[in-house]
Parts: sequence; C-alpha cells; structure tokens
Amino acid sequence: MIGKFIVIEGLEGAGKSTAIKQVIATLAQHGIHDPASTREPGGTPLAEQMRALVKEGHPDEPLTDMAELLLLYAARIQLVDNVIKPALNQGQWVVGDRHDMSSQAYQGGGRGFDKALMENLRDTVLGDFRPDLTIYMDIDPELGLQRARGRGALDRIEQMNVDFFHRARARFLELSENQPNVIIIDASQSLDKVTEDLQSALNAWLEQQ
Amino acid sequence: MIGKFIVIEGLEGAGKSTAIKQVIATLAQHGIHDPASTREPGGTPLAEQMRALVKEGHPDEPLTDMAELLLLYAARIQLVDNVIKPALNQGQWVVGDRHDMSSQAYQGGGRGFDKALMENLRDTVLGDFRPDLTIYMDIDPELGLQRARGRGALDRIEQMNVDFFHRARARFLELSENQPNVIIIDASQSLDKVTEDLQSALNAWLEQQ
Repeated sequence: MIGKFIVIEGLEGAGKSTAIKQVIATLAQHGIHDPASTREPGGTPLAEQMRALVKEGHPDEPLTDMAELLLLYAARIQLVDNVIKPALNQGQWVVGDRHDMSSQAYQGGGRGFDKALMENLRDTVLGDFRPDLTIYMDIDPELGLQRARGRGALDRIEQMNVDFFHRARARFLELSENQPNVIIIDASQSLDKVTEDLQSALNAWLEQQ
Repeated sequence: MIGKFIVIEGLEGAGKSTAIKQVIATLAQHGIHDPASTREPGGTPLAEQMRALVKEGHPDEPLTDMAELLLLYAARIQLVDNVIKPALNQGQWVVGDRHDMSSQAYQGGGRGFDKALMENLRDTVLGDFRPDLTIYMDIDPELGLQRARGRGALDRIEQMNVDFFHRARARFLELSENQPNVIIIDASQSLDKVTEDLQSALNAWLEQQ
C-alpha cells in the first residue's frame, strides 16, 4: 500500500494552517494516523536554505524572478525526492502546506511567466508526480492580506502589490475549477462554515478512496 | 559601444586561473583595460550563497542532480542580469571563469541529463545570451585531477569519479570543435607553449573585432 499526498493551497490569510489541522484530524477519524507534514518552499535542510533565499532575498542585490522560480523548483525536488516520495512509498500519508499549484499561481499568474514555460518546467522537474488531492482555500486578496498583516512582519512575497495577489488568485481558480482532484473551499466564510465545508468534502473524498 | 564577454572553460586542473590572467594581460595590450572578472557558479552575493549549496551540499541530505542543475542556473541568471549584462551595456569587457558550457559538460555530459533538457533549460533561463568568445582549456582528466589535488581539499564535484570527468571532457570537446566562437587550447602542454598558443589565438580573434 502506498500513501496519499494531500495539499492545502491558497493565498496568505486564507486559513491554510487551520485547514491543515482539520485535515489531519479528519484523517485520524478515518484511521489514518501520523501523516507526514510538509511545507513549501522548504521542508528539508537544503530546501529550507533555498526558502530563506526566496523569502529574505539580499539587501544589496535583487533576486530575479527567474532565479526565484528556479530556487522554488530546486527546493521542491529536494522535498519530493527526499521526503514525500519515501514517505508515500512506505505507506505514510503526506499533508502538504503548498506545492506546485502555488508556483503556477504566484510565479505564473503573479509574476507573469507564461503558461507553457511554467508547465514545461514543472514537467521537467517533477515528471508526472502530482498530489492525490488539493484543497484550495479561496479568499479575496484584500481580506486575506488583512488577516495576514495581523500576524506581523511581511516577507518579500507578502509585500507584493495587491494586484499580484489578484492575478495569483485568478490562476488558483483557473487550476481548481472543474478539476476532479481539487476541492475548492470558500475561505471567506465564518470559521464554523469553513470547517463544515472542508470536513464534508474531505469525508466524501476519503470514502471514495 | 558595448563590451564583449570572454569565458574560460575547462576541467579542474586545466590551468583556467593562469589563462584568465593571460587573457586580461593580452586585453590590456590591445587597450582594453579593467575588464570585469566573474566566476561561476557565484559572482554576486546571492549567487555565492547558491554556489555554497552546490559545492558543500549538506551532511544530512543528498543534493539531487536536478536541484543542483536548477541552483546552477539560478546563480547564473543572477550573475548575468545583475553583473554581466550591466557591465557589457556600459562598454566594459567581462572575463568569466566558467559559464554555461560547464553546465552542459558537467550536468549534461557528467550527470547524464539529456541534451534536449539541457538546451531547453539554457534557452528558457538565458534566452539568446551567449559569450562572444569561449576559450576551452582541454586536458585529460587524470592529469587535470592530479594537478587539482595538489591544491588541497576537494569539493563535492571535484570528488566525483574520474569517469564523470571523462564524460564532461567529451561534451566540452563536442561543444568546442569547429565552433567559430570557441578557441581550444591544449592545456596538457608546457606552460610556455600553453601561453604562446593562447596569446596567439586571442590576438588573432581580437584583431578581427
């Protein structure tokens, strides 16, 4: 038996951290205990060093959009090859805080890299490796950023203009709507309603597995 | 007037450092003073951090071949966009210790990434940016490694099996032979003869510019 890879995606302030806890609790109710938790970019010693370059940049030098994109994929393949695939192959489930859809949305939609380039790079680096399920927490960027700002200092990407996040959200939606392996949750609702929608959709998916 | 980009390539122990000094001296004889000197991977604050990841890896985690490749290109585009192109656009010449041919040789030839992938990644990251002249210092890997080992501790790549360097040399030669913008120097000769060949070929090239 091999495990399954469930990814939670969404803009800053969409409630990903809370959703991850709920996913792990729901999995436990289905007898799936102690899934591996990952975050991207990062999740391995080398990938965390790459994450720091992306998040912090350097005071004396701009990080180019292309170098950012390549670092994100370098970090991703470290995590996939050294953590996610070994866990899945041992039968462990994996719950991921972000994965490839974030690059498609932020670097493709937000930074404006064209779709062919983004898909080509994804296929070159990841081959046909994909999540079994993606839960996309959809939120309006204004509301999400308002929530995220309440948490403290913003990193290099969180400091982008709101238009950047509108473009990212549009790409998230485009990649999520009518996709069999993606659940969209309206994260602008009350916490109770978000929880209810998430558990209901995840239960339905788990019963089909 | 824009400057020109001259790159010195070759295996470890081929005498690149000495060749770079001779190139700079020869340029000065032609009235081209104070070229920018670059090295790859590295040459900017962020690119040097990426270099360290490639050269040192991590004691607890293997650096995958794909992540290595992506880091090398991330470092390269930082250097090209933030150092090399600005210098050239200001009329300054640039002398580079390694550039893209090293990736084609080490990661393509040595690690075995296929040519289509390597060319696609190069074109995606660099567009049509290429050196004006490449000087490839050709040496047999056994002789080169013997010289390099005399310099002290070897890094992650220098520790590779000699077969890796034979594959890299074959790719270097394949990319250099019969190329109008590449000069091949037989670096196994005496230092005097190497110097004579290099100066003679570079003088001929400079007189054509």
